[in-house]
Amino acid sequence: MPTTGQNAPIDVPRGLKGVIVTDTSIGDVRGTEGFYHYREFSAVELADSRGFEDVWHLMFHGTLPDAAERAAFTARTAALRHLPADVADALPVIARGSVLSGPLAGLRTALSLTGASAGFRPLYDIAPDRRRADALAACAVVPTLLTALYRLGQGLAPIEPRDDLPYAANYLYMLTGEEPDPVRARAIERYLISTVDHGFNASTFTARVIASTGADLAACLVGAIGALSGPLHGGAPSRALDTLDAIGSPDRIDGWLREHIEAGDRIMGFGHPVYRTEDPRSRMLKGIARGFGGDLVDFAVQVEARAEALLAELKPGRELHINVEFYAGVVMELCGLPREMFTPTFAAARVVGWSANILEQAEDSKIIRPSARYVGPPPPRPVAAA
Amino acid sequence: MPTTGQNAPIDVPRGLKGVIVTDTSIGDVRGTEGFYHYREFSAVELADSRGFEDVWHLMFHGTLPDAAERAAFTARTAALRHLPADVADALPVIARGSVLSGPLAGLRTALSLTGASAGFRPLYDIAPDRRRADALAACAVVPTLLTALYRLGQGLAPIEPRDDLPYAANYLYMLTGEEPDPVRARAIERYLISTVDHGFNASTFTARVIASTGADLAACLVGAIGALSGPLHGGAPSRALDTLDAIGSPDRIDGWLREHIEAGDRIMGFGHPVYRTEDPRSRMLKGIARGFGGDLVDFAVQVEARAEALLAELKPGRELHINVEFYAGVVMELCGLPREMFTPTFAAARVVGWSANILEQAEDSKIIRPSARYVGPPPPRPVAAA
Repeated sequence: MPTTGQNAPIDVPRGLKGVIVTDTSIGDVRGTEGFYHYREFSAVELADSRGFEDVWHLMFHGTLPDAAERAAFTARTAALRHLPADVADALPVIARGSVLSGPLAGLRTALSLTGASAGFRPLYDIAPDRRRADALAACAVVPTLLTALYRLGQGLAPIEPRDDLPYAANYLYMLTGEEPDPVRARAIERYLISTVDHGFNASTFTARVIASTGADLAACLVGAIGALSGPLHGGAPSRALDTLDAIGSPDRIDGWLREHIEAGDRIMGFGHPVYRTEDPRSRMLKGIARGFGGDLVDFAVQVEARAEALLAELKPGRELHINVEFYAGVVMELCGLPREMFTPTFAAARVVGWSANILEQAEDSKIIRPSARYVGPPPPRPVAAA
Repeated sequence: MPTTGQNAPIDVPRGLKGVIVTDTSIGDVRGTEGFYHYREFSAVELADSRGFEDVWHLMFHGTLPDAAERAAFTARTAALRHLPADVADALPVIARGSVLSGPLAGLRTALSLTGASAGFRPLYDIAPDRRRADALAACAVVPTLLTALYRLGQGLAPIEPRDDLPYAANYLYMLTGEEPDPVRARAIERYLISTVDHGFNASTFTARVIASTGADLAACLVGAIGALSGPLHGGAPSRALDTLDAIGSPDRIDGWLREHIEAGDRIMGFGHPVYRTEDPRSRMLKGIARGFGGDLVDFAVQVEARAEALLAELKPGRELHINVEFYAGVVMELCGLPREMFTPTFAAARVVGWSANILEQAEDSKIIRPSARYVGPPPPRPVAAA
């Protein structure tokens, strides 16, 4: 077999499972404990007790802000929510061109344009402060882009951001044009905080691979959005809600679940590549959902209980518990988000985690460049004349 | 130290150097032999004896086309060069928004929109034939997007593709509005063929990571374009030409080189992460340049010879030879390409290699998802009240 041109090819598990690519101080997931953290803080505890801007500050600066830092950070990021004129001008055609592929594809295009328009420079050509400024600008503008693209797709005019509202409340405001009630704004804020980061998932890894070439921040984020849009990445909370719709009513729960589990179908909202316990995000989101109450929540709780029982019975040893999608979908539905905005809302939070990872990767100067093993017919075979 | 949540963390060299991520039948680089190949054929031999469409067919289908296959493939791809109306409508604002970040950022945005507009579907949701059709459409349209963005940036109207010209000649035609002379068209065609693929570089890896999530083809290509735009990826043939300009004249060669080598500066156009010999692409491109002749070529040959000698003297054992950038820049200059289009022209060829890799990755169903090691302060630290 031909060599790859590397001195010592290193075999690892397919998909790089378990392979340590880098050290990080951003956070981690402890799958066997059902625990995940941002910096040294429990992510769930942060979601329970802090605002989105506090956590964003933590991810970017490594510390929770004091009162003065919070005020300055909130004012600075609120001012960055407004779209440059050329980006705003392009959104109608981007929205029109994204009808078939959906809002994540629209965000991919619009954020690419926003970064170019802002003149984002290669990460290795600029100082850490400038990198962080670019990252603040990108994160601040994502909710504006997403809500504008959504509204344009509905034939509605985009709504200007309101600088006086916190990140989460402003997001709901830009979507609907109405100031959200505090309970819903806080529920979405807790969801967004719980979604900011989650270990070394495929989109975070993608962002860091691109960052390792020294490309600009938009290049990294656009790649991450692309990876997030992949069905294997997960992160499609609407699918779990679609499952609830498909089941339809409490009397059909066992029949529907048993049929689909026995057919080997994947039950959306259950199972995770890292957690072997209940997903800690699910526990928190279930609590939020129960705070709202109502038929949908009661039904979801029943489905969850029966699915856990039937999966344990029919797929013993697989440890298939509810994942973040299950109650995330319920919470977003209760907060009035349209289903097609569920994954984009996830992206609006995760862009902060991607950015923190990109900023950390930019402190390294080593390109991430693995190898492949050529297994085709041995070259060189002579090229016949055309 | 906290565990990562994986059962058995696997330590590997930083940057994954030498780590085998996947098997491939696309091609390989044998760095110690100065040889690289597409499928089982020498890439340089393909560039010397075949047209771009033949190599594109080889990359996508695994075989060189016979006469009938060539005619069908050429007609099919030529018909795909035309832009959809909504993409064409968006190009002026994309060109305007990309002035600061350059044509690769413009291509990133425009190709993202093109894929969304065409309704590209997640790779895992569609059959191999449909994936290949999406990839053909994306590759065929890249030269049209690039030349239109360039001309719009110059205040000129884009030029419609001509279906009767081969890929390379049509590229030069869309750039200038004039049918290129056959010698220049063939020189660029050989350059493009030699650039289609080159082992498991960072942009190819990026494309495959995104593909492994099952995302659509545009998501993968847009990420790859982002990685290509990074300074550490290499692939900036204009920089080597800038070096020739900076040296200025034959009498300044030794002084300039000695000063910069002794200062520890990287000499653009020299050195490669894989090759420890002359880059085989350089040898071919030098031959093409010599065929043109003239002052620039004579000067480049002198600089090359002195730089090789001085690098061997001042950096003994480093094996710093010319890389593809050096004569690629010279050849593109001689063919009349503007310098800012050098890297985009590279991208116009490489998109075929990325696509072949994406199509191969899509046959696998394993997500590429490595791990990171958390090295920050140990959690959980209690979250103080805000």
